Amino acid sequence: VIGIGLMGGSLARALRAHADAPEVVGYSPVASERDAAVAAGAVSRVVERADDAAASADLVVYAVPLSVTVDLMKRHQSAWRRDAVVSDVCSLKSALTALARSLGIEHRYVGAHPMTGGESSGFGASRSELYRAATVWLTAAEAAGDERARIERLWASLGALPRWIDAETHDRIMVRASHLPQLLSNLLADALRRAGLGPGDVGPGGRDMTRLAGSSPEVWRDLLESSSVELAPVLRELGDALDDAASSLERGDLDALVRVMERTRSWRSGEQPGDA
Amino acid sequence: VIGIGLMGGSLARALRAHADAPEVVGYSPVASERDAAVAAGAVSRVVERADDAAASADLVVYAVPLSVTVDLMKRHQSAWRRDAVVSDVCSLKSALTALARSLGIEHRYVGAHPMTGGESSGFGASRSELYRAATVWLTAAEAAGDERARIERLWASLGALPRWIDAETHDRIMVRASHLPQLLSNLLADALRRAGLGPGDVGPGGRDMTRLAGSSPEVWRDLLESSSVELAPVLRELGDALDDAASSLERGDLDALVRVMERTRSWRSGEQPGDA
Repeated sequence: VIGIGLMGGSLARALRAHADAPEVVGYSPVASERDAAVAAGAVSRVVERADDAAASADLVVYAVPLSVTVDLMKRHQSAWRRDAVVSDVCSLKSALTALARSLGIEHRYVGAHPMTGGESSGFGASRSELYRAATVWLTAAEAAGDERARIERLWASLGALPRWIDAETHDRIMVRASHLPQLLSNLLADALRRAGLGPGDVGPGGRDMTRLAGSSPEVWRDLLESSSVELAPVLRELGDALDDAASSLERGDLDALVRVMERTRSWRSGEQPGDA
Repeated sequence: VIGIGLMGGSLARALRAHADAPEVVGYSPVASERDAAVAAGAVSRVVERADDAAASADLVVYAVPLSVTVDLMKRHQSAWRRDAVVSDVCSLKSALTALARSLGIEHRYVGAHPMTGGESSGFGASRSELYRAATVWLTAAEAAGDERARIERLWASLGALPRWIDAETHDRIMVRASHLPQLLSNLLADALRRAGLGPGDVGPGGRDMTRLAGSSPEVWRDLLESSSVELAPVLRELGDALDDAASSLERGDLDALVRVMERTRSWRSGEQPGDA
């Protein structure tokens, strides 16, 4: 497990909590994180060079930001065992699928994107139950059946719900289901901050809406960069919707807003959507 | 308690759960709601005419939508006992403060706005613990000390945290801390719906961001109407911020977005805000 922060640390913990736990080698560049992982029994051993973790394993999971994953996968292409399965937990899959192809490991690359996390980061935030009942999207354009089955079984054994999807569809969904809510939370929190309000001045609804605003900029920088072509027009569309709502308020057309609220209440309760 | 839905029902339940519970008369226009409140022991008795509840009580709390509160307060001005304290739980206070003045009850009107709730409505959603540890804003432009102390003690006795504020400041904050997040959640959910995504397609962050989209349009219609003059420019400002973020993505200026994310992470953790 290359990277033992929230995602990688939780994966290591969950694997080691198994009845027949595999050997788990963890990598972190930070000595205190390595020490904490050993003390918690989350890893069999730790290494301070990512290359050492990549060389020995029959399954290599990158649990670092997307740009670091890209750099390390390139650097490790001659270090991996020839039969090693390569995976990751990044929340965008198209770029890594293309990279796997260019590195000639498309038959043994299976991407994973667990739909869980939290705004805290680092090993200290990790927990063995993080993946329980969480959807985990799996992408494997060309991986062989054995490798696919192996990764699917691994996540299922941690209590997660693996679902297969193609990388492009996955990323199109993620831009809306994950990146858009993230930036929206940041921009809302920034607006409250500018107005002189603190996080304690909002009610439970406002707290939900600004929780993501505490997420790690280090993680999101890469994700936003990779999705910028798809994300920018989606942001503009929502900006237009806000302007439309403002216009409705200004001309006293409350019916227009009530219709939106009725549509989204039905949407949330899983009813058939009404008009478009 | 005029209206025994989520807010009024919870207030009645909490009062009746007290060691020295007062007599609580509940009003609902809906027979099944009245029956449910009696069966749950949430009220001493129920009435099917709001006027009957208003006439007998030494404290009248309106727990109905803002426009209904306005209508009923006007209608009840000759029905109240002359020493009755009049209160409400609406989330906007300026209009009711002005109304109290015009009805000549400014010395015995104390407004309350509990910063809690939920997207479900009706007596079935009420619970005696709803107000525990919740901030309750209290406004009383001209109420006498006794009336102020009485309402403050009442909320404190339910485990809530009463805080005094003037009605205008309260409403300016609420537009940003409550109405803005509400509409944003609706507009985000509507965008996801238009893109063909269901509520189950989003991760935990997206779920937080769309939870409010299930709120009651019936309750919000009045609130949005009352706050439209203040709310419209606030919506436009956030629309501009979304456009700016899209422009940053388009020109590859990830630093600009990272700065926003760093600011809001600090804001959320209660650190001193950085640059504006």
